[in-house]
Amino acid sequence: MTTGRLEAFSDGVIAVAITLLVLNIQVPAPPLPHGKTLAHVLAGNWPVYAAYITSFLTIGIIWINHHVMIRRLREPDHMILFLNLLLLMSIAVLPFATDLMADYLKQSSGQHLAAAVYSGTFLVMALFFTTLNRHLLLVEPQRLREEIPLERRRQIFFRSVTGVIPYAIATALALVSPYVTLGICAAVAVFYAFPISSGGASDGAAAEP
Amino acid sequence: MTTGRLEAFSDGVIAVAITLLVLNIQVPAPPLPHGKTLAHVLAGNWPVYAAYITSFLTIGIIWINHHVMIRRLREPDHMILFLNLLLLMSIAVLPFATDLMADYLKQSSGQHLAAAVYSGTFLVMALFFTTLNRHLLLVEPQRLREEIPLERRRQIFFRSVTGVIPYAIATALALVSPYVTLGICAAVAVFYAFPISSGGASDGAAAEP
Amino acid sequence: MTTGRLEAFSDGVIAVAITLLVLNIQVPAPPLPHGKTLAHVLAGNWPVYAAYITSFLTIGIIWINHHVMIRRLREPDHMILFLNLLLLMSIAVLPFATDLMADYLKQSSGQHLAAAVYSGTFLVMALFFTTLNRHLLLVEPQRLREEIPLERRRQIFFRSVTGVIPYAIATALALVSPYVTLGICAAVAVFYAFPISSGGASDGAAAEP
Amino acid sequence: MTTGRLEAFSDGVIAVAITLLVLNIQVPAPPLPHGKTLAHVLAGNWPVYAAYITSFLTIGIIWINHHVMIRRLREPDHMILFLNLLLLMSIAVLPFATDLMADYLKQSSGQHLAAAVYSGTFLVMALFFTTLNRHLLLVEPQRLREEIPLERRRQIFFRSVTGVIPYAIATALALVSPYVTLGICAAVAVFYAFPISSGGASDGAAAEP
Repeated sequence: MTTGRLEAFSDGVIAVAITLLVLNIQVPAPPLPHGKTLAHVLAGNWPVYAAYITSFLTIGIIWINHHVMIRRLREPDHMILFLNLLLLMSIAVLPFATDLMADYLKQSSGQHLAAAVYSGTFLVMALFFTTLNRHLLLVEPQRLREEIPLERRRQIFFRSVTGVIPYAIATALALVSPYVTLGICAAVAVFYAFPISSGGASDGAAAEP
Repeated sequence: MTTGRLEAFSDGVIAVAITLLVLNIQVPAPPLPHGKTLAHVLAGNWPVYAAYITSFLTIGIIWINHHVMIRRLREPDHMILFLNLLLLMSIAVLPFATDLMADYLKQSSGQHLAAAVYSGTFLVMALFFTTLNRHLLLVEPQRLREEIPLERRRQIFFRSVTGVIPYAIATALALVSPYVTLGICAAVAVFYAFPISSGGASDGAAAEP
Repeated sequence: MTTGRLEAFSDGVIAVAITLLVLNIQVPAPPLPHGKTLAHVLAGNWPVYAAYITSFLTIGIIWINHHVMIRRLREPDHMILFLNLLLLMSIAVLPFATDLMADYLKQSSGQHLAAAVYSGTFLVMALFFTTLNRHLLLVEPQRLREEIPLERRRQIFFRSVTGVIPYAIATALALVSPYVTLGICAAVAVFYAFPISSGGASDGAAAEP
Repeated sequence: MTTGRLEAFSDGVIAVAITLLVLNIQVPAPPLPHGKTLAHVLAGNWPVYAAYITSFLTIGIIWINHHVMIRRLREPDHMILFLNLLLLMSIAVLPFATDLMADYLKQSSGQHLAAAVYSGTFLVMALFFTTLNRHLLLVEPQRLREEIPLERRRQIFFRSVTGVIPYAIATALALVSPYVTLGICAAVAVFYAFPISSGGASDGAAAEP
């Protein structure tokens, strides 16, 4: 298994997952219910768009960070393939988690759990990313393409650890309000997607500074 | 991040989005309603096919132009990755916008908004394409693979600006008639897809001369 | 645009289309209607499996032949990109045509049209393939990677022309019986997929000898 | 046809199939039935998650093993392309088989057949994998990139043969209990995915030691 093929397959899964998100945005079946306009119905679906944009940007950032991480690698071992597969699973499941979040955000029952599942999926994704980074940087550094000083490797690793924090907070706050959870996930996505934070975004998971 | 990987991921997203469009073409559930033939039902679905072909050709053209644009680049910076992600989002959302257009074109309510959302998505796509082109050609020209004279760079950029115009018109005319909007988008797609206009099609977004 | 990128994008669209076919195979919603076993219900869905296998093999063959064709090319011109886009559209639409065929095969109304649309899509695909081959081999031979004698180029082209014939017959016979149409398409798929006919399969569309 | 393109197309199909699995995880439509919580409903769907994880890991392992196998090859012949297409078909059909398993596991009718279809699909996949391996290692060894001693080739082949066994047992035991079938398939997936068994996992199908 070469690093190139690992990247190509990961790219494929991530590209399909990010594009499948659109299937969650349903067209309201015409004709519209009496007294409702399409504008009303579409506007009422705002949680769908908010969750879509948040998930799209987050997957986009994890894709960028995934490449930065894998590019450091000379050749993967079986543990890296396994951890990468788990990371891909947490990404591939996002169309479901996003749909759940969007469908229950405005409900009076189930909204807290839906939000917890949503940010919980990001949390698991960030944890797998960090574990993969740890294995690569601290456990098997001899597999790196170029030697990196221990100090620098630790620094990169700790950055991806800090990336876990906002999702842990967002998941905990799902008990309080699903809006807060979605807001934190959206803020994290916008913060790392925006080019201002470019320095850090290239060294960790979706959520790292 | 290399230009090659940026292209591969973009190709993946665009290939999935263009192929997912087919999910909008629903098979009428048998048995058919009494007194209706399959030919009648399928023929009545013509907005679905018209929107499908228009979106398919438009995504095909944007794919061609995307490569022409990215091929000029030596190495992307974070701003390019971010703008490219926004461009991909506007493409990935097209299966929804296409479905909305097709479902509401013949309705007596919601048809104007549906058409505005449809051409509006193309408009946003063309705007992101132009912004990306501007960043690449005029803001960060030192990232180009080969030096291009300022005069020529401006020319390429202005071409992609003009590509925005038909979609702006189509979106405005959605207030008048959704048929006009679909007609303009279809005409733009056919015009740039057809090899006669090959000179210009290789320098801009879907809509540029 | 390089030949490599043209192949990669075409591969992407073909890989997505061939895999999306599975969405046509629906799981019967449990609990089953009284007095029916799952075996009965699944067995009654045999047109779905027959159409699935036929379409899967046919797309697989067209993928093989597409590469043999494109590999001969040094660099595509705009006409080739355009014809290739039309070819990809005819492939991308196959999940719909396959679903239509499967859903109406056993119906007493609409079955002839459904079969005609199914083999008609293959016919259009074979025609686009032949047109693309003609452009490449006879109109723009200077774009070939290696010089091929006119005699040989004509031979390859005529082979892809003969590939159109079975689909034309299958489409005409849809008026008589949809079973005959599906049978011909399935026979063509099996004939070209099977390694016995390997000599010819590398020179044309799904249906060529 | 080069080995590289064969890998790229196979990667594409496998990446799409593995990601499409998520479409089987449906969000329960809000509002929830009276007296039910979202936690209850989601927890009741555990067969969906169990089948999802099992299929995801199994496809991931077959992807790894597919590369190990194809990397040995210098250039594919038509038989290899054909067998590979059949292997891809057995993988592409997994989203359906997974859905069937998940939907019927807890039913009192159809559950045995559903389980047999599920592990039967893995069985067919393992058989195609073994057949492909046999053709490559024992029938056409002159197509290998590097010469491998007969002894070693036989060893690799027999490993993929043993990979068929657990799926044969799981399929037979579907008559007894669908839970046992799912349990065996899950155990096989976890066993080969886990890095502990890394030595063998790189030489055969999903199920080989």
